[in-house]
Amino acid sequence: MLHIIYLIAISAEAASGALMALRRKMDLFGVAVVGTATALGGGSIRDVLLGHYPLGWVQHPEYLLYTIVAAIAAALAARLLHRLKSAFLVLDALGLVAFSIIGCDIAASAGVHVSVVVLMGMITGIAGGLLRDILCNQVPLVLRRDLYATVSLLTGALYMGLLHFNVEQHIATLVALAVGFCFRLAAIYFVLALPVLETDEA
Amino acid sequence: MLHIIYLIAISAEAASGALMALRRKMDLFGVAVVGTATALGGGSIRDVLLGHYPLGWVQHPEYLLYTIVAAIAAALAARLLHRLKSAFLVLDALGLVAFSIIGCDIAASAGVHVSVVVLMGMITGIAGGLLRDILCNQVPLVLRRDLYATVSLLTGALYMGLLHFNVEQHIATLVALAVGFCFRLAAIYFVLALPVLETDEA
Amino acid sequence: MLHIIYLIAISAEAASGALMALRRKMDLFGVAVVGTATALGGGSIRDVLLGHYPLGWVQHPEYLLYTIVAAIAAALAARLLHRLKSAFLVLDALGLVAFSIIGCDIAASAGVHVSVVVLMGMITGIAGGLLRDILCNQVPLVLRRDLYATVSLLTGALYMGLLHFNVEQHIATLVALAVGFCFRLAAIYFVLALPVLETDEA
Repeated sequence: MLHIIYLIAISAEAASGALMALRRKMDLFGVAVVGTATALGGGSIRDVLLGHYPLGWVQHPEYLLYTIVAAIAAALAARLLHRLKSAFLVLDALGLVAFSIIGCDIAASAGVHVSVVVLMGMITGIAGGLLRDILCNQVPLVLRRDLYATVSLLTGALYMGLLHFNVEQHIATLVALAVGFCFRLAAIYFVLALPVLETDEA
Repeated sequence: MLHIIYLIAISAEAASGALMALRRKMDLFGVAVVGTATALGGGSIRDVLLGHYPLGWVQHPEYLLYTIVAAIAAALAARLLHRLKSAFLVLDALGLVAFSIIGCDIAASAGVHVSVVVLMGMITGIAGGLLRDILCNQVPLVLRRDLYATVSLLTGALYMGLLHFNVEQHIATLVALAVGFCFRLAAIYFVLALPVLETDEA
Repeated sequence: MLHIIYLIAISAEAASGALMALRRKMDLFGVAVVGTATALGGGSIRDVLLGHYPLGWVQHPEYLLYTIVAAIAAALAARLLHRLKSAFLVLDALGLVAFSIIGCDIAASAGVHVSVVVLMGMITGIAGGLLRDILCNQVPLVLRRDLYATVSLLTGALYMGLLHFNVEQHIATLVALAVGFCFRLAAIYFVLALPVLETDEA
């Protein structure tokens, strides 16, 4: 099940990268590159930091195909997606939560400390979006808004906590997925955010 | 022969990085760093993604010397290079094509799928320029213009295709080099580009 | 001793990242991420380039805790730190020099050429600041100002030179630390800088 969610997640992330690339007037090639980097970048950065080789897409090049197709499809359907914005946010929320859980799984199998596991889950969840924003020359949104990264951290912490108390893996996955997903949707709906400290020097 | 072309390529890339750093008012040190990152960044990113250690310049520190000298020389000769712009574009085109072929060779020797090989060739060709643009705080040019990355992809695909049909390696190298080079020059000359999709939200 | 200086160094770097994130209107989470990336980014990039796994903070997750606490404390105390600017610059100078020496040690133990050792020392010293500036969407300051990177290079070169002439390690560390530190403070005090080349195309 997580595999199917993973495929939906990388497609949604690829689409989000493609739409931002489009706004930056990139050509179709740039759209494909930014889309692919957004979708696969988080996992790649996690694996490079862990020294966990080969990377996912090096071993499964078909992932590249999915993300390129999703990015180009999203670019071609850009006007339509405007209206589908809520569907898009839902997919993106699902992707964020799924990425976080998958990232925890891979980091846990590398045998690192649980705090690093949860952090690696978060890196998997948000680093793709970071890369997208750097490639498009923006201050990364994920560092500014909507409890995005907080949702990722809490999902990972919940998942690892459940496993720690010997909850069966399928159930832990489902619970973390559901709770994280609802939390993210609530954050969007109620426009929750962490406080921004005031500063004089802005 | 590819080795000599490689040295020309890293010098040309170092010069292109140096010129952009100069426009951003960086000091001589920044010029050397951006030049070196532009020249050696693509290969380094490829090797890190493949887990292919040690990196080229770690094993051959003399490459660092070449790129630093080339970057500083380019900065000192900046006014002259203004006039030499066509010579510069020709060197850069040669570098792009040579990097792509060398990148394919190294990825192929790591035993990955052919689609990943061609992609790694492209990463070798364009990631240095990407790094240069990120360090200089610009939307990366390679994602926007002139079939730059497309040339890299096609050169790699042609090279791997020739090898697949048992063409002798020297001949495959020469053919891919010549075709890619002419294609890149044609793209510059005729201002070819991939279509940019229109969007309402610009 | 170097270990204590290291802890001071990562705290100072985390604080510098936090203050810049704050100016960019990031929330507390962004402040923690940028602070941590600034403090631990240089060492992580060095280790990834060397293929030296596991990374420091993967093995010692408590470093993450220090940097997060330091970043948030700095953000909360931002108005105060305004006045403490000189204390901050002193800590930062100490951090730069300590990072450079520690980076040299780790690279030397990986058995690479001495020029690469000194370069890795510099990467350890400045890459965190680079990452901070990229995350905050700025042209990296370290490439533009104050002999920052030059201090790092010279500290590393001095340290490796002393070791080469069989100076005892503790003494080499102390001498390099003292000289680099004084040089950096002198550079700040006298506003020393490398020449920026004039260019027409600015």
